[in-house]
Amino acid sequence: MSGERVFSGFRVTGEQHIGNYLGAIKNYVALQDSYECIYCAVDVHSLTTLEDARLVGPNSLQSATVMLAAGVDPARSIIFVQSHVPEVIELAEYFAMLTPLSVLTRVPTFKEKVQQQPENVNLGLVGYPVLMAADILTYKAALVPIGIDQEPHLELTREVARKFNNHFGDTFPEPKSVHTETPLIRGLDGQAKMSKSMGNAIPIAATEEETTRLVRSAMTDPQRQRRTDPGRPEVCNVYSLHEVFTPGRTAEIHQQCTTAAIGCVDCKGILADSINETFREFRARHAELNAKPDEVRAILRDGAARARVIAQETLAEVRDRIGLMPA
Amino acid sequence: MSGERVFSGFRVTGEQHIGNYLGAIKNYVALQDSYECIYCAVDVHSLTTLEDARLVGPNSLQSATVMLAAGVDPARSIIFVQSHVPEVIELAEYFAMLTPLSVLTRVPTFKEKVQQQPENVNLGLVGYPVLMAADILTYKAALVPIGIDQEPHLELTREVARKFNNHFGDTFPEPKSVHTETPLIRGLDGQAKMSKSMGNAIPIAATEEETTRLVRSAMTDPQRQRRTDPGRPEVCNVYSLHEVFTPGRTAEIHQQCTTAAIGCVDCKGILADSINETFREFRARHAELNAKPDEVRAILRDGAARARVIAQETLAEVRDRIGLMPA
Repeated sequence: MSGERVFSGFRVTGEQHIGNYLGAIKNYVALQDSYECIYCAVDVHSLTTLEDARLVGPNSLQSATVMLAAGVDPARSIIFVQSHVPEVIELAEYFAMLTPLSVLTRVPTFKEKVQQQPENVNLGLVGYPVLMAADILTYKAALVPIGIDQEPHLELTREVARKFNNHFGDTFPEPKSVHTETPLIRGLDGQAKMSKSMGNAIPIAATEEETTRLVRSAMTDPQRQRRTDPGRPEVCNVYSLHEVFTPGRTAEIHQQCTTAAIGCVDCKGILADSINETFREFRARHAELNAKPDEVRAILRDGAARARVIAQETLAEVRDRIGLMPA
Repeated sequence: MSGERVFSGFRVTGEQHIGNYLGAIKNYVALQDSYECIYCAVDVHSLTTLEDARLVGPNSLQSATVMLAAGVDPARSIIFVQSHVPEVIELAEYFAMLTPLSVLTRVPTFKEKVQQQPENVNLGLVGYPVLMAADILTYKAALVPIGIDQEPHLELTREVARKFNNHFGDTFPEPKSVHTETPLIRGLDGQAKMSKSMGNAIPIAATEEETTRLVRSAMTDPQRQRRTDPGRPEVCNVYSLHEVFTPGRTAEIHQQCTTAAIGCVDCKGILADSINETFREFRARHAELNAKPDEVRAILRDGAARARVIAQETLAEVRDRIGLMPA
């Protein structure tokens, strides 16, 4: 335990898939062994796209249930829902006063969103990185596990911290990123990264039968048309999934594929078994927690109370630094 | 008492002048006879221009002291400091998700600010009207006393209310403006509207001697160079101030000026007396309250507590309407 504090916000979504698990979720669990971790279901962020907003409540509960089933341990870590600690929104408002609009409109993820939803470029969307900065700095986190695409956001967080410190005196540490190993999981279509919106994903909480059926539908090497044709593992997404889920047997599978010793159906059967094996324990815990939503709610309520103690301390300090009239 | 609720935010500033009194402040006092009034020292808004931010705490206290001295009655009205009710910032964040950035960058006051402080066009500045909408809608105010220059902000507030209601169900009334009589008070230089930043103002809490000295320094008709020259009241700002402060004697003063029956020094003496007479009671109460800042603080604390009861009720409703997971 280094004692350093880790903060991460996870998206509030109805259905997480096995690619998410191997990326962020597995890291969340591992980081608990070395750090004091604060994990937050970022429901307010999800309101920036109104489509996501419709199911924000149930999705908050579902996403948190997945985290807990995966091994986020409320005895060691704090897990809570963003909107339950509104102090973070207050901090974001103060940061908004220090953040040039021109910096925000240059953020790559903002530009992407403008292209994706040109009809809904709202103030919340352009302010997203400022709310993210507040998420992190409210808890004065030292470390933030992020993918490389989030690095501009974290740099903006550091800029906000520096600017606040310069204006109002030393208050916030500048958080560092933890780049954790996140294998690229290709979707079942073999075309793109696994993603719910691409319809090429295996839901993390799928049953074993569903998993087997989905794997069976996966694209393989299009040149391997007959059972007797040798396959090309290097272009086959089923093989790339074997590299992740069946790491001990890739040499063998490679050899059997290229010599047509096994067909795609058998190969997919092995993959389905590997995936089901990987997620068996998770799925059992997930089913158990899913049946006890009140228990999950109680965990999140307790997490929010613990997060709020930290947040209120930070906000009292911030208001004092700015020089607002004491309440 | 119509029972309708009035909300107004007043700027947090170090020094209010007699022009402010005759505009907003006097109306604040009068509205109490007919409505349930909520008056808010908008300290968070003042942070959008960092120069104002430096003295935000003392200025909040001073501005509220002026309101109370003028006759805002905490037994009938709620008076409090904006940052003491952070629920309003949370509501502004939800509204931000519904407000197109393009609408905000077209707001006239934003465009003005961009010209005034091009080096500090921050996110808070562009979000100013959204925070103002939250100020008003948090309390579901029916009426907002505003000057004509604020009308675009109130229209934006109504748009936000409509949009929220359309998306999430009927929640907010659309507030109407109360256009109250606010005479244009020209500054002592006769060039522009009285304004602290123009250096042409008489502070509301000036002593009688200071008032007399300031009035004596006022520009008059530049063509009246000798005591025996007849004056032109229609171009003289001292005369225009007489119209406000010495309304019963304007015909007489007009006649005496145009016939050179009195000189400018005497005319200014009459004006200084009128202003001092107008503010005598206010200044006495102001001096009294100024000597008891803890009493003012207690009034503001009580006001915040009462405002917060309303705000928390609204926010609970809003979170439920949006569908956020209950805490």
